[in-house]
This record gives sequence, C-alpha cells and structure tokens, in this order.
Amino acid sequence: MTGAGRPLREVGEEELIEQIARLVGDRSNRVSIGIGDDAAAWRPRAGHELVITTDTLIERVHFRLEWTDWEALGHKSLAVNLSDIAAMGAIPRLAVVDLAVRGTERDRDIADFYRGVQALARRFGVAIVGGDTTRSPLGVAVSITVIGESPRDGHRLLRRDAGRPGDLIGVTGPIGLAAAGLRVLERGLKTLDGNPVMQEHYHRPQPRVREGLLLRRCGVRAAMDISDGLLGDLQKLCRASGVAAIVDLERVPVPNAIKWAFPDWEEVALRGGDDYELLFAAPPAVFARVARAFARAGLLPPWKIGQLVEAGSAGPIVELRDVTGRCRPADARGFDHFRTG
Amino acid sequence: MTGAGRPLREVGEEELIEQIARLVGDRSNRVSIGIGDDAAAWRPRAGHELVITTDTLIERVHFRLEWTDWEALGHKSLAVNLSDIAAMGAIPRLAVVDLAVRGTERDRDIADFYRGVQALARRFGVAIVGGDTTRSPLGVAVSITVIGESPRDGHRLLRRDAGRPGDLIGVTGPIGLAAAGLRVLERGLKTLDGNPVMQEHYHRPQPRVREGLLLRRCGVRAAMDISDGLLGDLQKLCRASGVAAIVDLERVPVPNAIKWAFPDWEEVALRGGDDYELLFAAPPAVFARVARAFARAGLLPPWKIGQLVEAGSAGPIVELRDVTGRCRPADARGFDHFRTG
Repeated sequence: MTGAGRPLREVGEEELIEQIARLVGDRSNRVSIGIGDDAAAWRPRAGHELVITTDTLIERVHFRLEWTDWEALGHKSLAVNLSDIAAMGAIPRLAVVDLAVRGTERDRDIADFYRGVQALARRFGVAIVGGDTTRSPLGVAVSITVIGESPRDGHRLLRRDAGRPGDLIGVTGPIGLAAAGLRVLERGLKTLDGNPVMQEHYHRPQPRVREGLLLRRCGVRAAMDISDGLLGDLQKLCRASGVAAIVDLERVPVPNAIKWAFPDWEEVALRGGDDYELLFAAPPAVFARVARAFARAGLLPPWKIGQLVEAGSAGPIVELRDVTGRCRPADARGFDHFRTG
Repeated sequence: MTGAGRPLREVGEEELIEQIARLVGDRSNRVSIGIGDDAAAWRPRAGHELVITTDTLIERVHFRLEWTDWEALGHKSLAVNLSDIAAMGAIPRLAVVDLAVRGTERDRDIADFYRGVQALARRFGVAIVGGDTTRSPLGVAVSITVIGESPRDGHRLLRRDAGRPGDLIGVTGPIGLAAAGLRVLERGLKTLDGNPVMQEHYHRPQPRVREGLLLRRCGVRAAMDISDGLLGDLQKLCRASGVAAIVDLERVPVPNAIKWAFPDWEEVALRGGDDYELLFAAPPAVFARVARAFARAGLLPPWKIGQLVEAGSAGPIVELRDVTGRCRPADARGFDHFRTG
C-alpha cells in the first residue's frame, strides 16, 4: 500500500472489475447474484426475486452527438440496460435515468432524449420512476439503472457461469450489424449497401426481452447479452463457466453485406460490439425446445454457432473452426475501455 | 414543436424536471411515488414497498479532485443517495455504482474510491451488487442508485407534499457547515477557525438514516433532505405541500464559527448546499414525540426552526422572521444547475 498503484491502461477492465468485486464483495444472504454477471439478483422475500442492472454511456466514448440524435440516444441508453435484464431471463419493471448535459442544450433536446427513453419503456411496460438531471460542462453522460423481476415460472435466472461441455452455443440474431454501422459512420460511407440497416442497428438496438424469457422457460441456464463483441463475450462466458468453446465461423449469422463491404469483416463483426443479441448455451434437447418455442412465438429461429467443450490445457479459450474443420484460437479480446483509446 | 426549443439556462432546473415528469409520467399502478420526491416508491407485492433513488456527481460541478481524495469521493457519492433514502424514512439495502474515469488514473485511486463507498455501505448494511466502470476522457462522473425498503411498521413514507399549516419545521442538525467547507476550499482559508469540521462536513456528509426511520415511526409525514440549501429546499417542500413557511432566523442552528467568518453567512449557510440533514414538518405533538424518541436513541434533539402556515396571496413562499418579529421574504432560490455557472 505504499506505491501509488498501476495505471489503468496496464491493469485493463477485467482485472479492475475483479479488484472492485474483491473490495465490495461482501454479499448479504439475500443477494443471489453479485458483481460479474449482466445483472445482480436480490431476494427481498421468499419467492420474490429482483434483478438490477446499470450502464453508463459517455459522449465520445459510447456515442457522438454528430452521429446520433437525442431521441436515438434515449432509446439506446435504455435498450442496453433492458438487454442486460433480458440476458437474465427477467421482466424489466422500473428505470431511473441520470442525464448529465453541457447546459448549452435546448429543452427540446432533453425532451427528445426522454421521448426516446419513454417510447422504448412503454413498449416493455417499464415505468420511469425517477432520475437526476445535472450539468456536465465537458460532455454528456447517461446512466440508467433498471430493476426487473423474475417471472414465477419455477426456473432460474440465466447466468454466465452455467455453461457446460456439450452445450450448443446459440445467438438470437445477426451479428456485426451495429459494429458495421459504427464503421459506416466513422468513415462516412454514405453509399454503402446495407447502410441504413447497419446504422439502425447501431443507433436502436432491440433488447431481446421476449427471447430471454423464452430461453429461461425452455430450461436454458447459461446466457449473456453481446455488448462487447461476440468473441470477447463468449470468452467471458467460457471463463465464468470453466469451459472452452468452438465456434463454426460459417455458422455465425454475419450478414453478407458486411462480408462484402469490409475485408476485415471478422474484426468488425466478431470483435465489434453493440449487437445486443443474446448469446446462450444449452444441451441439444433444450436447444431444440428453444427453436420450437421461438417458432411458436413468431420469432426467428436461434442460430447454432458452435459448441462448448471441456477446457484443455490452454484453459477456457475460444477457437474458430472453418468449413474444412481446421481450428485456430480466436483472438478473443473484447472491447476494453482502459486499454484502448 | 417547430422551433428548436429554449436554452436550458432560461428554462431552469425546476421547469425542466416538470417537463420530463410530463413526458415519462405514466405510472404503473404499483408505483406509489413517482418523479419529484427524494426517491420513488414501488410496491412489487402487497405489503412490500421498495424505495429507489439515484444521484450523479460530476467533476468540476459537484467536486474537484484537487480538493477531495478518492476515498472521500466514494463516501460522498453513496452518502447523498443514502440521504435520499433516509428522507423517505426507509432502510437502504442495495446499491449499484457507475464510475466513469479518465483512464489516466491508477488502480489504487479506483480502489480508494470503492473503499470509501464500501466503508459507508457496510455501516448501513448496504450491499454493493453491481455497477459499471467506464472511460470518460473529459472528466470523472459517478452515478449511484440505491434501493431501500419500507420497514413494516404500519407508517407511510415521508413525502415532500405532506406538510400542513400549523406544522412545526424541524432540522436534524447544524446548517451551513458543508457550504462553509466549500467556501474554505474555494478561497484557500487555511487558518480559519472551524476549518477541519467544515471540510469534514463538506467531504463526508452523514446520511440521517436512523433519524429518518425515527421520524416515520413517530408519525411524521413530511420530510426531505437538505441538499440544495435550506431555504431552497424548504421552498420545494412548501410548493409541493401548497403551504407557506415562516423561519425564525435565530433558531436555525448555524454554527457561530460561520457567522464570525463570513459576513454573508446567510447566503453561505441558508442557500449553500450539501448539508444532508433532514428537514421535516410535523404537528407540535408529533414534534415533541420526535424529540423524546431522538433523546431515547441517544441522538441530539431536532431543531425547531419555524412553522408552516396557510399560503396567502403570495403563494407558497418562505419568510424569514428575526428576533424582533419582523418578517421578510426569503430569496429562496436553491442551487440551479442550469441557471448558474
């Protein structure tokens, strides 16, 4: 304790979170899931389980006001939190919204932001019950906290650490569109085929709340949402579960428009972030049940992209397998706030 | 809706919050207190009431890293939220912590921050169950959300809108020390008498959780915490309750050290912020009960600083009365994030 510590750039996000979890990790006996999953879980009463999650969006780190409008910012700020509730298989109920603005904005901007929040909240039956609006001369910041409830269906919350060898790996929708949308914005690619769809996915992710509830009801145990890139997030699931993963590259639903547009599409689609689809792992029989349930609910079928396997001597790694059966280790670094930029 | 709206500087914080409340105000029937009080209240099940609050602290608006250390910042960030729970008469249970940092910090700084959070959390039996640590190149921001529970004591939550004419106005402790502490820091008044106490109050406010619970148990209905200055906050209570108030200037417990040090002590102590004492209003018999309960609990007695009266033609105003009985309207503007600075 005599030194001044290490720079965050060296420590990295993952180790930092572990340090924090050690410091604040004394759980009360009513806290069933603490720091480290998509959301925390708390049982205030027997038979009643609440799920709590929070996420911050910072100007010039998570969004740029040149590229987004206030209404889309409101949508996305709530969507990323609803996605965490979806990833637990819970029902979102309440949200509180902290918005810090420069003070040079107009009331119309703030109203547009809240319209974006409210339109999405209403679709999911979420009540916005409070918040804090404050001044932040150097840039806009949004922090939203969402509280959800476990349905009383006799099933457990979806967790990152519940993957088992033999589980099939599934995703609920296309991968890479949002990251491609960001690339389009960064490079000003106005004429690119697929451009509006990509931007729409980047600006207005759709939280997979129904899908999360169906996964849970079908008996799935392991899931998380894909926010920091498929490979990086799958790596987190593997580490939490103590398993390794093989991903069949050609099975990952990366839209052809992305493969055509970007020679480095693997980087964009598999390591880019902001998908907000659900990533899950389940035994084959459960996976089949999920496919049937999704079809009955009028949802697109889940995509089967690979399998969890026993962690070998290399540990809980992610490997990419091509159509010829050749495997190579995925460079599964996800987005790290402190190492990048 | 054709213009681009009005600048926030003209709109001001209060009107902005009203605009937001109109936009997001559709409450579900389980939300018993929505936007506008110290915290929101939600009844997930019959007989079970949860209280939710959130607050953001922004570098150079709410704190300066030259003046505070990370551990004190952690303490204060949680304390201001616990104070909101205290002001409802509820028991804090869980917190989630969003911390945005430049990225140039050291892991030791972040650990110190969480040590400050955790030490206070442990004192009040609060579990830190999650959060988000992210990069914010332009400055540090902290957003904390706290969830509390109503005790099952048959009483109601304390509210801002429950003041009635004839109620005595009480505060739970000295007024102005934190604002004096800020003044000391701003002006570098190193030798000022009372300096360490003032700075301690500024850096480490003590949330009045026990006091809030006792107020409730004694039958008090109206309370809030003093975060934006006594007069401004009392004005809010008056407006919410539709009453006016007379404050006996000499009864307000402003430490003599402040009166001696600052010729404009009224400005510093009554309009400065960051006290985090509770302000409450109760009929005389209830007030007497509170005084007895505080004494039994080993707490200092509450200070009786004035009385609520019927709002006259001037509306829900706050007046200051001096020892000679002369009244003058208090300039009760509280701190407004958007009009100032």
